[in-house]
Amino acid sequence: MPVYTAPTRDMQFILHEVLNVSASDTPGYAELESDFTRAVLEEAGKLASEVLSPLNPVGDSEGCHLENGVVRTPRGFKAAFDQVRMGGWTALDLPEEFGGQNMPYILGTAVGEMFSGANQAFTMYQGLTHGAASAILVHGTEEQKQTYLPKMANCDWTGTMNLTEPHCGTDLGLMRTKAEPQGDSSYRITGQKIFISAGEHDMAENIIHLVLARIPGGPEGIKGVSLFIVPKFLVNDDGSLGDRNGVTCGKIEEKMGIHGNSTCVMNYDGATGWLLGEEHKGMRAMFTMMNEARIGVGMQGLAQAEVAYQNALAYAKDRLQGRDVTGAKNPNGPADPLIVHPDIRRSLMDQKSFIEGARAFMLWGAELIDRSHRGGDEAAEGLISLMTPVIKGFLTDEGYDMTVRAQQVYGGHGYIEEWGMSQFTRDARIAMIYEGANGVQALDLVGRKLAQDGGKHVMAFFDLVKTFLKENEGNEALKVDFLDPLKAASKDLQAAGMFFMQNGMKNPNAALAGSYDFMHLFGHVCLGLMWARMARAAHAALAAGTSDEAFYKTKLATGRFYMKRRLPATALHLARIQSGAEPVMALEAEAF
Amino acid sequence: MPVYTAPTRDMQFILHEVLNVSASDTPGYAELESDFTRAVLEEAGKLASEVLSPLNPVGDSEGCHLENGVVRTPRGFKAAFDQVRMGGWTALDLPEEFGGQNMPYILGTAVGEMFSGANQAFTMYQGLTHGAASAILVHGTEEQKQTYLPKMANCDWTGTMNLTEPHCGTDLGLMRTKAEPQGDSSYRITGQKIFISAGEHDMAENIIHLVLARIPGGPEGIKGVSLFIVPKFLVNDDGSLGDRNGVTCGKIEEKMGIHGNSTCVMNYDGATGWLLGEEHKGMRAMFTMMNEARIGVGMQGLAQAEVAYQNALAYAKDRLQGRDVTGAKNPNGPADPLIVHPDIRRSLMDQKSFIEGARAFMLWGAELIDRSHRGGDEAAEGLISLMTPVIKGFLTDEGYDMTVRAQQVYGGHGYIEEWGMSQFTRDARIAMIYEGANGVQALDLVGRKLAQDGGKHVMAFFDLVKTFLKENEGNEALKVDFLDPLKAASKDLQAAGMFFMQNGMKNPNAALAGSYDFMHLFGHVCLGLMWARMARAAHAALAAGTSDEAFYKTKLATGRFYMKRRLPATALHLARIQSGAEPVMALEAEAF
Repeated sequence: MPVYTAPTRDMQFILHEVLNVSASDTPGYAELESDFTRAVLEEAGKLASEVLSPLNPVGDSEGCHLENGVVRTPRGFKAAFDQVRMGGWTALDLPEEFGGQNMPYILGTAVGEMFSGANQAFTMYQGLTHGAASAILVHGTEEQKQTYLPKMANCDWTGTMNLTEPHCGTDLGLMRTKAEPQGDSSYRITGQKIFISAGEHDMAENIIHLVLARIPGGPEGIKGVSLFIVPKFLVNDDGSLGDRNGVTCGKIEEKMGIHGNSTCVMNYDGATGWLLGEEHKGMRAMFTMMNEARIGVGMQGLAQAEVAYQNALAYAKDRLQGRDVTGAKNPNGPADPLIVHPDIRRSLMDQKSFIEGARAFMLWGAELIDRSHRGGDEAAEGLISLMTPVIKGFLTDEGYDMTVRAQQVYGGHGYIEEWGMSQFTRDARIAMIYEGANGVQALDLVGRKLAQDGGKHVMAFFDLVKTFLKENEGNEALKVDFLDPLKAASKDLQAAGMFFMQNGMKNPNAALAGSYDFMHLFGHVCLGLMWARMARAAHAALAAGTSDEAFYKTKLATGRFYMKRRLPATALHLARIQSGAEPVMALEAEAF
Repeated sequence: MPVYTAPTRDMQFILHEVLNVSASDTPGYAELESDFTRAVLEEAGKLASEVLSPLNPVGDSEGCHLENGVVRTPRGFKAAFDQVRMGGWTALDLPEEFGGQNMPYILGTAVGEMFSGANQAFTMYQGLTHGAASAILVHGTEEQKQTYLPKMANCDWTGTMNLTEPHCGTDLGLMRTKAEPQGDSSYRITGQKIFISAGEHDMAENIIHLVLARIPGGPEGIKGVSLFIVPKFLVNDDGSLGDRNGVTCGKIEEKMGIHGNSTCVMNYDGATGWLLGEEHKGMRAMFTMMNEARIGVGMQGLAQAEVAYQNALAYAKDRLQGRDVTGAKNPNGPADPLIVHPDIRRSLMDQKSFIEGARAFMLWGAELIDRSHRGGDEAAEGLISLMTPVIKGFLTDEGYDMTVRAQQVYGGHGYIEEWGMSQFTRDARIAMIYEGANGVQALDLVGRKLAQDGGKHVMAFFDLVKTFLKENEGNEALKVDFLDPLKAASKDLQAAGMFFMQNGMKNPNAALAGSYDFMHLFGHVCLGLMWARMARAAHAALAAGTSDEAFYKTKLATGRFYMKRRLPATALHLARIQSGAEPVMALEAEAF
């Protein structure tokens, strides 16, 4: 059975030596001292390894079952959920007045990676609740906040997001679900929603559905969509649960993975709902959830890559097969361990260098969110808004590829469910799809975010790289291995941006045909930047003297690998982008 | 439910306009006239679409079940197998004297792609039989051939390959299964084999297991391994079935995909077997099956990509979502079809340009096999031996990636089993693993095949590219779009080979660390060459005048896409290769 070990040491390195969180003036960051974060991460890691991880294969093999309208989650899920709930792990970063612990988002993100890595399907129940709670926190009335948030903070009540309908996913303007005002501030919601994660289950007293619907008579298309709070059980004035609302689970989908999470068809048959935020401004309210959810999904890509890598590494060290061509490494055994073989090593380094770079990227992203939300830093807000599709799209594409590589290390055993490697791949696959398929992320990045506010945010990104290069130009230890490759990669990104500017106005397809490559190009540059920052921190630690030399030297070697073997992909992405729209759009639709 | 349409038109183009098969002097090729191959392919295509394809999801959802030692295959499999058998589809290329039809391998390969695309799990039953029959044909005694081949030709009896044991897969020298001589030309086989595809099932009267085992007292390691014929039912002198042999299925594995094929743990408890080929020369005999099987597996990668693409394309034309940014294409509908979006188009072109290039590559490979086996052409034998790991490794890696892209076109529906796209991905995944995991293919290519016979075969490949470029240098229609990119890619491949020569002698890891990239680099150059050949043929057809202009113009646009957007990957692979062993091998195993 696969195991999960929390990457506490690596997270501590990023938090304290790369991002220097406790020295930051972002509100709440001063408390994030090393001993404190270590204690939190170690505690979370224990829960992840000992409670959530063993339930991961159980969730996969049992799945969720709908019987007489009730959804039964896999054996052990409810008890574990209670344990997570009791431990206060469900609302680390929600305000104290609603039962949260008011910690920075960055810490919740680190803990989230652990929980997701140990058991993605399980962790989604609380993840969706967090997203729904965030939307109520930002857009809800005082009464709505008081009614729902204290219960949602500890997941006594869980939450959902209801966007998709059978005929519309990305294009929500086609939505048909309707919300008729009842004259008493409530609405009557009617329609069908599909792919609703955690839509119905047996782990919480109540489920608070956030539902996009159309108020009759409103504007057509996406501008006529509003967001509603639709609880499974109506809530009485005293906070107790009242009648069952007219919302039911019609079906649980059979999926490729995340079997432990109940993906439901939800039928709204005149259910009672209340407007959240303004009429016809549903998308804005929904995007509060979506942006957070997108970063959370990027994290899932990383988290599945991490757990798959851990198990591939253990197997590569354990499984004896063949001999090192340069001389036996295990001469007294029947064969050498797999890890002696260069191509296995190549695969493990691909995985390791992605994972550690991605983790730094994700935590940097979380820091920007804190700077924006807690510190009101608009530049940080702009930058994370730009990078959100990159975090989502690049980390989930690469994360999935890494689970495939990890599975491959097992040979035939990787294909057999018994060993658990197939589950990591199957679970990771969804992250490329939900919360906006990765092609939609690329479109968001190139079609919207790049030019946002006059291109200010992408310029800020380039400045940041330039400043880093400038600040470190005298650092000979970094120059060849880190700064030069980062500079080259960043130049490729700029050239791509330039190509879009020069060609996209005349023909939007010239930019959009390269959008997917641009998202990956951008992702590589971000990871290159993070590796350069980590390398600087590692050199600093080694120069200052440390009892943990091995950690820093390994960090440097891993970073060098990324810069040498992975980062040069930017040139290929640029070449594709510069080939423009013609090759992509040459065929008429009928010619396919 | 997904559908499958046989790519007959495209196959005809490759056979007759690119490879000009009926003009070839390879024995049997003169009969391959256009009308004849079309009739065969259309008939096979009908069977694939109408019989095998509808059973594909049935096989996936039902799987195989072991009850009291008997394996039950999915509903409908046996009847369909009878239909395939009766139609004479199981031994197209076996000799007539044993019940085959003595057709060239190239035709069997084209038919094989159709059957695999329609239903991979199903087609494996006959594929493995074919491999086992080939080994008996080449290495068997006259008596063995007479006993087994007529029954195996029409799959009344099916065949298996038994290599893997729980502790050894790639490293077969560690094998423990033993074969004790009984003094009467028979051996007593004892041991356990795992991952035996079609190891036990209910679709044939008898199952002929080819089993690698060790004769006590023989040399240690791989040099002491022999191959045995171990029938499920012993065969009486008159050819009738006798006693049940001591071989049983202990378990059916739960796998990520190909559920319709029974993957068995096979227990040999003093089973009676007969030596096939020479004592201790088992690997040589096994490789007769393995090389054929590897090309067959490469074909599976292509076949799954094809069927996944067909369904993604249909969905992209049908599903209405969003608007073309350059102006509505379906103004009277609520939205435009997905195919208007540049990133969807990019994905479809990635798929289409891979598939058509891969098909030409595979059929060219099959032609080389015919030239070698039927024509005794040693140069062809050397070339296909060199390219076998490329066909297997590159086509299955890329084929898998293409099924992932196709699945992605469906958005959330791609993740739901109901739509069938998940199955294509899950089924395609095995092809990267079995018959030698792709890392082992890369090792075979760089560690063995490149230097084989003094590097003669890779030089022959380069000559072939050079000759093609030379022959067409005056062809202005080809120059910029096809010849120049092919030349550049081929130069990258040569530079990689040069790097290995200069560095691999001193340090084998300098070559092996780049082996995986080299396999992909080589694959791209092969597809580039095939696209250049196809483009030449398309231009020739257009110049000669044709009633099917659209086909040839589409072919040219698809080829241009490959040359512009996919082939430049060779530069990235070369950069990685030239980074050598250091980045890959920098960490000690303990440092991971």
